[in-house]
Amino acid sequence: MEKFLSQPTNGSLVLLPTLYMVWSDTLLTDSEHQAFQSFFKTVDWLSEEDRKYLVAKLDPQSPPSREEMEMWWQTIKLAVDNNTNYPHLSSIGLEILKKYAPEVAHTFPMSRVEQELGNLEDQLGIIGKSAALTFKSSHSNISTSYETQVGFDIAKLTALLDGKRKPLIDEVKSLIAKKEFDYVDPSNLKDFREQVLIWCKILANKGYGSIGFPKEYGGKNDMEGYFTVMETLSYRDLSTVIKFGVQFGLWGMSVLMLGTKKHHQKYLKAIGSLELPGCFAMTETNHGSNVRGIETTATYNHAEKNFTIHTPHINARKEYIGNAALHGKMATVFAKLIIDGKDYGVSTFIVPLRDDQGKTLPGISIEDCGRKMGLNGVDNGLIAFDTVIVPKENMLDKFSSVDDEGNFQSPIASDNKRFFTMLGTLVGGRIGIPRSALAASKSGLTIAIRYADKRRQFGPDGTSEVPILNYRMHQRRLLPLLAKTYACHFAMEHMTDRFLNRKESEMQEIEALAAGLKSYVTWHNTSTLQECREACGGKGYLSENRIDALKNDSDVYTTFEGDNTVLLQLVAKSRLSSYKKQFENMNLFTVIDYVVTKTKTTLTEKNPLIIRKTDETHLLDPDFHLNAFQYRESSILNSAAKRLKRLMDEGMDPFDAVNVAQHHLFTLGMAFIERVILEQFIEKIKQTTDPELKLVLKRLCDLFALYQIETHKGWYLEQGYMEGGKAKAIRKMVNQLCWETRKDAVPLVNAFNIPDSCLSAPIAT
Amino acid sequence: MEKFLSQPTNGSLVLLPTLYMVWSDTLLTDSEHQAFQSFFKTVDWLSEEDRKYLVAKLDPQSPPSREEMEMWWQTIKLAVDNNTNYPHLSSIGLEILKKYAPEVAHTFPMSRVEQELGNLEDQLGIIGKSAALTFKSSHSNISTSYETQVGFDIAKLTALLDGKRKPLIDEVKSLIAKKEFDYVDPSNLKDFREQVLIWCKILANKGYGSIGFPKEYGGKNDMEGYFTVMETLSYRDLSTVIKFGVQFGLWGMSVLMLGTKKHHQKYLKAIGSLELPGCFAMTETNHGSNVRGIETTATYNHAEKNFTIHTPHINARKEYIGNAALHGKMATVFAKLIIDGKDYGVSTFIVPLRDDQGKTLPGISIEDCGRKMGLNGVDNGLIAFDTVIVPKENMLDKFSSVDDEGNFQSPIASDNKRFFTMLGTLVGGRIGIPRSALAASKSGLTIAIRYADKRRQFGPDGTSEVPILNYRMHQRRLLPLLAKTYACHFAMEHMTDRFLNRKESEMQEIEALAAGLKSYVTWHNTSTLQECREACGGKGYLSENRIDALKNDSDVYTTFEGDNTVLLQLVAKSRLSSYKKQFENMNLFTVIDYVVTKTKTTLTEKNPLIIRKTDETHLLDPDFHLNAFQYRESSILNSAAKRLKRLMDEGMDPFDAVNVAQHHLFTLGMAFIERVILEQFIEKIKQTTDPELKLVLKRLCDLFALYQIETHKGWYLEQGYMEGGKAKAIRKMVNQLCWETRKDAVPLVNAFNIPDSCLSAPIAT
Repeated sequence: MEKFLSQPTNGSLVLLPTLYMVWSDTLLTDSEHQAFQSFFKTVDWLSEEDRKYLVAKLDPQSPPSREEMEMWWQTIKLAVDNNTNYPHLSSIGLEILKKYAPEVAHTFPMSRVEQELGNLEDQLGIIGKSAALTFKSSHSNISTSYETQVGFDIAKLTALLDGKRKPLIDEVKSLIAKKEFDYVDPSNLKDFREQVLIWCKILANKGYGSIGFPKEYGGKNDMEGYFTVMETLSYRDLSTVIKFGVQFGLWGMSVLMLGTKKHHQKYLKAIGSLELPGCFAMTETNHGSNVRGIETTATYNHAEKNFTIHTPHINARKEYIGNAALHGKMATVFAKLIIDGKDYGVSTFIVPLRDDQGKTLPGISIEDCGRKMGLNGVDNGLIAFDTVIVPKENMLDKFSSVDDEGNFQSPIASDNKRFFTMLGTLVGGRIGIPRSALAASKSGLTIAIRYADKRRQFGPDGTSEVPILNYRMHQRRLLPLLAKTYACHFAMEHMTDRFLNRKESEMQEIEALAAGLKSYVTWHNTSTLQECREACGGKGYLSENRIDALKNDSDVYTTFEGDNTVLLQLVAKSRLSSYKKQFENMNLFTVIDYVVTKTKTTLTEKNPLIIRKTDETHLLDPDFHLNAFQYRESSILNSAAKRLKRLMDEGMDPFDAVNVAQHHLFTLGMAFIERVILEQFIEKIKQTTDPELKLVLKRLCDLFALYQIETHKGWYLEQGYMEGGKAKAIRKMVNQLCWETRKDAVPLVNAFNIPDSCLSAPIAT
Repeated sequence: MEKFLSQPTNGSLVLLPTLYMVWSDTLLTDSEHQAFQSFFKTVDWLSEEDRKYLVAKLDPQSPPSREEMEMWWQTIKLAVDNNTNYPHLSSIGLEILKKYAPEVAHTFPMSRVEQELGNLEDQLGIIGKSAALTFKSSHSNISTSYETQVGFDIAKLTALLDGKRKPLIDEVKSLIAKKEFDYVDPSNLKDFREQVLIWCKILANKGYGSIGFPKEYGGKNDMEGYFTVMETLSYRDLSTVIKFGVQFGLWGMSVLMLGTKKHHQKYLKAIGSLELPGCFAMTETNHGSNVRGIETTATYNHAEKNFTIHTPHINARKEYIGNAALHGKMATVFAKLIIDGKDYGVSTFIVPLRDDQGKTLPGISIEDCGRKMGLNGVDNGLIAFDTVIVPKENMLDKFSSVDDEGNFQSPIASDNKRFFTMLGTLVGGRIGIPRSALAASKSGLTIAIRYADKRRQFGPDGTSEVPILNYRMHQRRLLPLLAKTYACHFAMEHMTDRFLNRKESEMQEIEALAAGLKSYVTWHNTSTLQECREACGGKGYLSENRIDALKNDSDVYTTFEGDNTVLLQLVAKSRLSSYKKQFENMNLFTVIDYVVTKTKTTLTEKNPLIIRKTDETHLLDPDFHLNAFQYRESSILNSAAKRLKRLMDEGMDPFDAVNVAQHHLFTLGMAFIERVILEQFIEKIKQTTDPELKLVLKRLCDLFALYQIETHKGWYLEQGYMEGGKAKAIRKMVNQLCWETRKDAVPLVNAFNIPDSCLSAPIAT
């Protein structure tokens, strides 16, 4: 048989599209070969010449040449009418036959021919309708038809996000958009740290550092302003933010909150102007989370009426102390107060570190922590004290003091209460840090979503390539994170509000909420930036696009200001105890109220109609979402309490019981925080009057809620809260919400209104 | 009433422990206060004096002083017998009473007193048995009793992991443990890049670079050795590994696989010795994943018999090209071959970049990509070609060529097949990269687990603090990742084996497996290192402990050598098509065999007995694990195929259909790979003869399998593959396996036998 036949025989024209399709994927498989063999045995309307040609073209050892396939392609395309729908490939084949060999077409028993050709295609597994589209010049594609559309007033959304401190936000944004704040190469640690100090000085000169201090010491008594400044600065370099936070939020606030008037008068003004850089020296190498275990001692000397500050061994050094390695002149040092050999627990002392020339004082040893994963503009250091003497008045004596007779005094009798009250005054850090993290998330999402809207890769044949934001997986990776970022934003608004209006009786509740939100939001930020890096591919790996700095700088947020895993355990115990109990007490002896008040009234009966309801109205009903989140929280609270009680009834040591139930407690903490976040988002939408904003926010909230339910669907199914079919419907709804949100994605990140000079990423600006 | 009563009255002694407990948490709550009021109304065995004392001590406004609480504590502890089990706090109270006021004790109606005191404790929510432990000097704790135990021969496990190339592994480990390979400060990019080149030269001089090349060109024809070298080097600096891989694996292998003898003779020896540094220039700014869309052209000039290489616009530049910014003298350039205005698709050409003095040649423009998130020892650059002339013999002509008449020639007729065959020759990169990633995971886990074994924080009262590896959450964070690392190790062993013994007919299957494992393992690595960083707290953030470098350097592994999300889609389509079809074809017209062969025989009936079975033997049965993984894969394959078919039957463009089903396809790809990984792990355990190794590996395998099932429990419950109770039992079993694995954790990471100089982390060495 000739290897090359110049053109198809008449009858074989009808199989041209099928031949092309079969060979376009490269090889003829055995099953395809067999399908054709059966076909040839059956049909009687092909001539001997036709069979010869077709058998030659279906020889697995002799694929058609490029030129042949090119000729087939042209022949087919010429016969195709773009407006006709072809149920089978062979429908096109018949058109070709009618065009080039009408006399043969007349002889064909058409209905039988169509049927046998259709069978062949089924045998070959060819989905004709779809395959036929290959040959059309153009047809509509869903994938190419998605694009950004501005469906709401972006400036209005920005105003809603900014809230009442918009003037301050815009003021800070203007400042950091100035040339003096342009990014620098962070390669040289020494230079970078000096630059960060310079930036902090500029901010101090503007009065931003002292904004939260009392007016009499140069401040504005405006803690809300302080949080706003920190958050807005976080659209830019995070080393600057953390250096700023260490100086004004930790060093400054510790003097303000733990000290008394004499300390305020002596130090606050200089701290607020950055004349007096200082440190917050609490954490030690061997004691981070367990602050009460710190080993630095402050021994009272009766005769001299002063204290000896001492580091007993190398692993009791203060570690990771910001401002310590280079600039800090003083530190608030947390140490165990020892009087006459008796340990009075943790107290705080101002300890000078360096003289005015920057030389460390006698007895002070400072070592640089060296390079870190990020935040290399912050000079973290280790500090050791070798019998350093400080005067009596250096003891920050708001909550504990030594009287003239050398006796310990405190307005709070209980050691526990005193300790946690002290730490509680610093809870502001647990609000500033998640707000800073959210700013980093917003930056990352702005970069990734703008890029995904422009970056095109792959596309249907014959059309231009498609923006990657038009792909389902890419939507699923980014849009639920965007929804969660909006949700966390409103939750942090609420948190700030609760904090600023706090009453003494609410402190445990506020501290639990702050601890929980800090954990949830910083973890959200870390996953978001990781996803943004990967979503931006190679561009995301280049430092010029800033995702690496955002991720690396904020990575430690899940560790400092309280390790997230430890914090969530505390949150869980708070939910288990009466609100007035000090939940931070690691030993849990009492499980009060767990049945009576918290769970009975919130556990909903599992309504058999509800567990199967899947219509769109129900799935998008905020009452359903809230019910699902509340059910999860209450149920886990109830089961965690029962479990702990059971373990302890059996005589298990409470420490062991908490350890055994640790995963359970972790889940409880997360469930609580998610419920609060959803509540706040729903509330915000209720208060929103602009109908377009309301619509887009509701869609985001629906996406957040359903995505979380989908994430926890294993738990919900386990509990019988929903059935399998409902879980599937939720998954489909999440996909649909992603499609719908796609057009809003770029406007939604533009609403964050982050200055281009801060984003500074070529792929986003 | 006197505010301070110097000591308890006789009768009140019985409530001393309860008083202490109630006040130790700081505040007396309203409900506690009320519980006491009711108590006082009921009891008749307390004297008036007793009541006065107790009421004073229960005044919420007047907490007991520190001295008082200290005195109560001492009194209680003196009365407690460590060997007695006290059912209630008041049981201790009664002991105190009997000790100090035996005459009063005699007068008490004991059984009624015990009952009423017991009721009071219930009212207060005090869990007596557990609370009583507070006052014991010592008692056994589960949490303090866990520790490392070596239950198997570590050297034997190392030998099992290393396999038959152990001698080469040990040889490379010795080399990189030498001083000349000590880490350097990576701050200065210029210096770091020069150092990495020096390291690569040392490795080239040892013959490691050319190890996979044919013997006649200085190699050892040992691809397995090449993989082994790359993996072992990956215990150290990853910039070195990637520079090495670019030079020998990409540049060298592209010449070997895509070129013919004349190219091998001319270049391979010099490539292998690093005399000829070069690049693999495929990716362009606008075309990464869609290689076929690249825009660099290679136009044939008939008269001169040469090619003009040209970059049509700035976004068609080659981007992220390793070795380009500084050292590369030549590059394998992927370009569209144009002859007489006709596009013949992607071909490859050797294009000189620099002269021997390192100056770029005419028409060559190279720009440095600048700083990156990691791998800053690799000089990535952008390359643009401005009508650069290369001789005809520079075309790498194994799969496509231009004959003397200027006609395109190829042994492969189909454009598709030719393209994918070309790329297929480079599949080795998709094996080297995941093996490198696993080495990074092993390093991270070694550091994190050794640290967690030593780092102590918090503990039960009166005992030393507990290693953090004794906490359930910490175990859950690290040990399933350790199990998955072992699982992936054996899967990559299998992958390497399949690759080295590949037959032409198996290529699609091997490519699908390589693509899938590359995605799965690199994502596993990224999450593992993130978890290791957080698990090591502040120490994990310091560069000296190396987790930041491991994470940042390997972060791009999920993007290069094929973007993971795109790869998984290809894997899914491979599973949907006949194995002989070219699955990389983005258009899916045929869905062959999806019902007939793949799914019918593997879908197991959901046996009502099995869906509820929760006994330990069943949960730890590898047949159950394998059945679960296979069921998941088959089921998702079946539903994905049906879904695609349905969408296309409705006439949806195949591109759109794939997009709509993208998440489904993603899940299919992952389910397939997980099943393969489990199969290989189980097989490895079967082949393991040493009983101790078998035991510890089986436990790891059980942990891997059940943790994955737990992760997917939502899907399994949705499908009715198991019921809620079984999911709960699996969760408990995972927790139990974590406990049991804890003692093996340090030996298991020590078995990786990573040189201390490579780990170089103070917290781990």
